[in-house]
Amino acid sequence: MDIEKSIKDLAVSVKAAARILAAAPTREKDLALLAMAANLRKRRDFLQVQNRIDLDKAVGNGLSPAMIDRLTLSDQVIEGMAVGLEEVAAFPDPVGEIVRMWQRPNQLQIGKMRIPLGVVGMIYESRPNVTADAAGLCLKSGNGVILRGGSEAFHSNMAVLEVLHEALEETAIPASVVQVVPFTDRLAINYLLACEDEIDLIIPRGGEGLIRFVVEHSRIPVIKHYKGVCHVYVDAGADTEMAENIVINAKTHRPGVCNAAETVLVHQDMAAGFMPVLVAALKAAGVEVRGCTRTCALVEGLIPAADSDWGAEYLDLIIAVKVVADLDAAISHIVKYGSDHTETIVTRDYQRAQEFLRRVNSSVVMVNASTRFSDGGQMGLGAEIGISTTKLHAYGPMGLEGLTTTKYIIYGNGQIRE
Amino acid sequence: MDIEKSIKDLAVSVKAAARILAAAPTREKDLALLAMAANLRKRRDFLQVQNRIDLDKAVGNGLSPAMIDRLTLSDQVIEGMAVGLEEVAAFPDPVGEIVRMWQRPNQLQIGKMRIPLGVVGMIYESRPNVTADAAGLCLKSGNGVILRGGSEAFHSNMAVLEVLHEALEETAIPASVVQVVPFTDRLAINYLLACEDEIDLIIPRGGEGLIRFVVEHSRIPVIKHYKGVCHVYVDAGADTEMAENIVINAKTHRPGVCNAAETVLVHQDMAAGFMPVLVAALKAAGVEVRGCTRTCALVEGLIPAADSDWGAEYLDLIIAVKVVADLDAAISHIVKYGSDHTETIVTRDYQRAQEFLRRVNSSVVMVNASTRFSDGGQMGLGAEIGISTTKLHAYGPMGLEGLTTTKYIIYGNGQIRE
Repeated sequence: MDIEKSIKDLAVSVKAAARILAAAPTREKDLALLAMAANLRKRRDFLQVQNRIDLDKAVGNGLSPAMIDRLTLSDQVIEGMAVGLEEVAAFPDPVGEIVRMWQRPNQLQIGKMRIPLGVVGMIYESRPNVTADAAGLCLKSGNGVILRGGSEAFHSNMAVLEVLHEALEETAIPASVVQVVPFTDRLAINYLLACEDEIDLIIPRGGEGLIRFVVEHSRIPVIKHYKGVCHVYVDAGADTEMAENIVINAKTHRPGVCNAAETVLVHQDMAAGFMPVLVAALKAAGVEVRGCTRTCALVEGLIPAADSDWGAEYLDLIIAVKVVADLDAAISHIVKYGSDHTETIVTRDYQRAQEFLRRVNSSVVMVNASTRFSDGGQMGLGAEIGISTTKLHAYGPMGLEGLTTTKYIIYGNGQIRE
Repeated sequence: MDIEKSIKDLAVSVKAAARILAAAPTREKDLALLAMAANLRKRRDFLQVQNRIDLDKAVGNGLSPAMIDRLTLSDQVIEGMAVGLEEVAAFPDPVGEIVRMWQRPNQLQIGKMRIPLGVVGMIYESRPNVTADAAGLCLKSGNGVILRGGSEAFHSNMAVLEVLHEALEETAIPASVVQVVPFTDRLAINYLLACEDEIDLIIPRGGEGLIRFVVEHSRIPVIKHYKGVCHVYVDAGADTEMAENIVINAKTHRPGVCNAAETVLVHQDMAAGFMPVLVAALKAAGVEVRGCTRTCALVEGLIPAADSDWGAEYLDLIIAVKVVADLDAAISHIVKYGSDHTETIVTRDYQRAQEFLRRVNSSVVMVNASTRFSDGGQMGLGAEIGISTTKLHAYGPMGLEGLTTTKYIIYGNGQIRE
């Protein structure tokens, strides 16, 4: 009962502060971001002392080395947080941008102006650097933010918040535009998801379990993606060297992330010549290859793909490979098994390139490029607060612009309706 | 149990048809819209015979004359439906529009392309003409649509559907992109709202009760507005004739709709001179005026406004009037009591006009124009499928563009990530 009331009070206070932030000039927001960056550097020792409490507990609880790595606020991670805030300060301010303006026959001038969404609720797992990253993006886009990180990073997150608050106290931006839920109790998430009058958008980041939990319990709109099952389609007549490079890069550059490729579809005319080369290259790169019947007939010693391999998100050095009849068959496979994340075609054919771009409605569709470019930073959107495979509001990598909406503004000179 | 399965099957079939529609060329969609319009005219007698069944039942159930009027498919209403579809055919196709395109340092060309949302669920009350209007907007924007009208219009809605299907059978567009829920049982709405894998967006149109019901039961994103409490703020030094015209137009042009004004705020410097004139004009136009203490002190014989008058949506010839200290006080009042719908300032002052436009974050904010212009058609957005006071995805009047999302398209020439 106490937790519920505390969270509601926190949300109300963030909403009030967000109103002030929404009207703040760009320069004041940028100064606040730079002050936050400077204080993260200045208070590095404090951050690491607090982080140590979480790390000691994590070691005691037997967390995996990978988890402990993600949890650690090393010098490098703290410097990265500071640089991230400085980069956000350097981005153009989305708020106030007039997206378009037109005039009506009765001389009304009508435009669409970007405004903040209001308050964003962010629910994530272990990395404490997300706390600073998300705070920076929300502040720049004029939104209040309530952060709820993983309980294993609790002391680290509260320390980051304290350091950001110290910095904001010296600026024109109210410190309470950024808050961290000060409870590790899982029920705190439920209470947060019920604050529909204060919070405008929930962004969960983490495993599919966390995201499904949030979607099921939220009365607030959620922007999410469950998984990334990205496809590479190698078209008839494709440049085989380019195809090989793209598949290897898309699979092995960073296999554990959502824009890594999970399935390769190869046009049947390419299969006999290209498949043995591709499989050899994948194996040489340490990738386990699971092939369809036709692939297994072409290349010896492959693991036959089971039905569950189509649409699987391995997040590992494993890939499923399939021979398809043509572009239509490739698109049908993607529609049936894809996750609306990212797909790429490797082709020399102009017509099929255009057709793939137009007919595949995943959030990012590419020609002759690695799926690893499906990323806000790589695409020039600035830092990324999340990626959406929900079509409403934002679809694909979501940066500052996705944290705004547009209102209509109308300049009249006394017009009334006849 | 049967109803639940039927609705699920219906949704699955609309989703499949919508995939074909999503890739249809503009010309095929426009021909389909024109065929639908032509068939509505041709089958007018059939529509009116079926409409008569609903009307006889409505008279038997003692529905109000206003309700019966809204339910009637008169010659004029049918002609309006046909003309509406022809107008939608004439609009530019939003699908395929490249909203923006840029190039990255590594020569990747990245753009945002409009695509349909997928399938829209529309839940509304009595007017059967909405059935054709919504079908037209969804078809043009490449979306499948499942319509659920009021049970009192059941035979009319099914007849409109039959006429639209007859027309579509002769075109390249699959008829099942448009469907009406063939059950009057209220539970049908619950089943529809649970089809989260088939339906991408729910748009409820009707009273606050219907909308709250939909929001509470939907697992699908909902675009909604509960009410329209529109404010006119008359600034110090405003042109009193313009202010009077705008208030009278905003209140009396069509008092029963959501963009009618419900509250007038008058700067205190204007009160003594302008308030008696304004109140007299309102009374002459048949409007009941409820005044704040200061207004009542200035004008005799007014009804004192109760607390509940601020923020009230009268939808009738009643208006609340209040004297405010300045622009800040006006904005505070709007933030506290407004509904994020539409607000207008009447002013001669450049600085305060700009400040009002920037600081008020309702979905439509105006200077020197009647709130009645807050309408998709009036604003040049084409026909309107709804109006949103939810900031996510669409905010304000929502036309064809609001029925689309954007995907990212990337043209590469073999790029991989280093």
